[in-house]
Amino acid sequence: MLLCDIGNSSYHFYNEREEYREDVESFNPLTCKERVFFINVNTKVAPILEKLDNWIDLSLHVKKENYYETMGIDRVVACEAVENSLIIDAGSAITVDIVKDGVFEGGFIMPGIKKMRETYFRLSNRLDYSFNFDIDLDKMPKNSQDAITYGFLATLKAEVNRHNMPIIITGGDAQKLHKIFPEAKIDRLLLFSGMQTIIKKGGLC
Amino acid sequence: MLLCDIGNSSYHFYNEREEYREDVESFNPLTCKERVFFINVNTKVAPILEKLDNWIDLSLHVKKENYYETMGIDRVVACEAVENSLIIDAGSAITVDIVKDGVFEGGFIMPGIKKMRETYFRLSNRLDYSFNFDIDLDKMPKNSQDAITYGFLATLKAEVNRHNMPIIITGGDAQKLHKIFPEAKIDRLLLFSGMQTIIKKGGLC
Repeated sequence: MLLCDIGNSSYHFYNEREEYREDVESFNPLTCKERVFFINVNTKVAPILEKLDNWIDLSLHVKKENYYETMGIDRVVACEAVENSLIIDAGSAITVDIVKDGVFEGGFIMPGIKKMRETYFRLSNRLDYSFNFDIDLDKMPKNSQDAITYGFLATLKAEVNRHNMPIIITGGDAQKLHKIFPEAKIDRLLLFSGMQTIIKKGGLC
Repeated sequence: MLLCDIGNSSYHFYNEREEYREDVESFNPLTCKERVFFINVNTKVAPILEKLDNWIDLSLHVKKENYYETMGIDRVVACEAVENSLIIDAGSAITVDIVKDGVFEGGFIMPGIKKMRETYFRLSNRLDYSFNFDIDLDKMPKNSQDAITYGFLATLKAEVNRHNMPIIITGGDAQKLHKIFPEAKIDRLLLFSGMQTIIKKGGLC
């Protein structure tokens, strides 16, 4: 069984042993002869895949009524992977979603690390610092770099900790956020776990 | 006694009875014959005021060792106004500073409302919503507008509430943030109070 998470820059495959990526510009999905279960947020690729019988769109097999209409399919699929967790997906956005007893309770969206750094710089060129992931968030900051790091990350941490739930971090910036949430579990393959759950629930394989 | 807080767009005056603004492009500080105690973040205006004997720069009369070197003078002056408070200054940035027993404990910086709205839009045009200041922050969001509002404001609120201190809100967006912190006191003239404290401490008047 081949799983694929398609974004704006790459096809991210997982064959249940290893993961690999193909560039969205150069990869031709017609070259794939086996069954591929996928989720996709790339609107350019969507009409091509629609015509291919062996590419199965898992978004059509999710119980959408458990979520909300405009919620990104990647968030939905990550939620399908867990029973009781707070999920942090740290990519271009940071999304935080809560699942209790297998039920989606709601979630929120923050800009990701790169976008927040840009935003502080656009606010003032005196705030052109990278974030300090080794910051001690138990102390109020007394320098500019820590003042923006704290404004971005202590606020996220305070809200996340308020929920007192097991934390799973996924996404490209998972390692960086792990420094802020050392008690969290990192699961780089969380989306693929969610896809496997949907396949199993739907009897697709 | 005339007080003035100079920003990038206006001279904000307070004559101890009323406040008024003058446009930074059209106002000529030479026309002011009385003593003006000011703080200024506008680098264009600074060399002009330096030459005028009746314009007294209060940043030269603050005990800077109580703060940190790159801290904005507006934040410093707001802190001078209080003994025990958490101050939220909601303008183009949102700054949060803590003063305990008259001592600055540290503070942090978040992008302001306008900049955060822009950032969400730059993240995805599907996140082009204004913030919902009537949101119920006790419920996890289940729609896009609330998901970004919560990501911005519930995180701020969780961190602010963790400090369990009396809250004072100032700045142009104070009324909007008051909806998120209904227990807070709004003080539009906080900076002028801080300026008066510095004048008194320094025996300048």
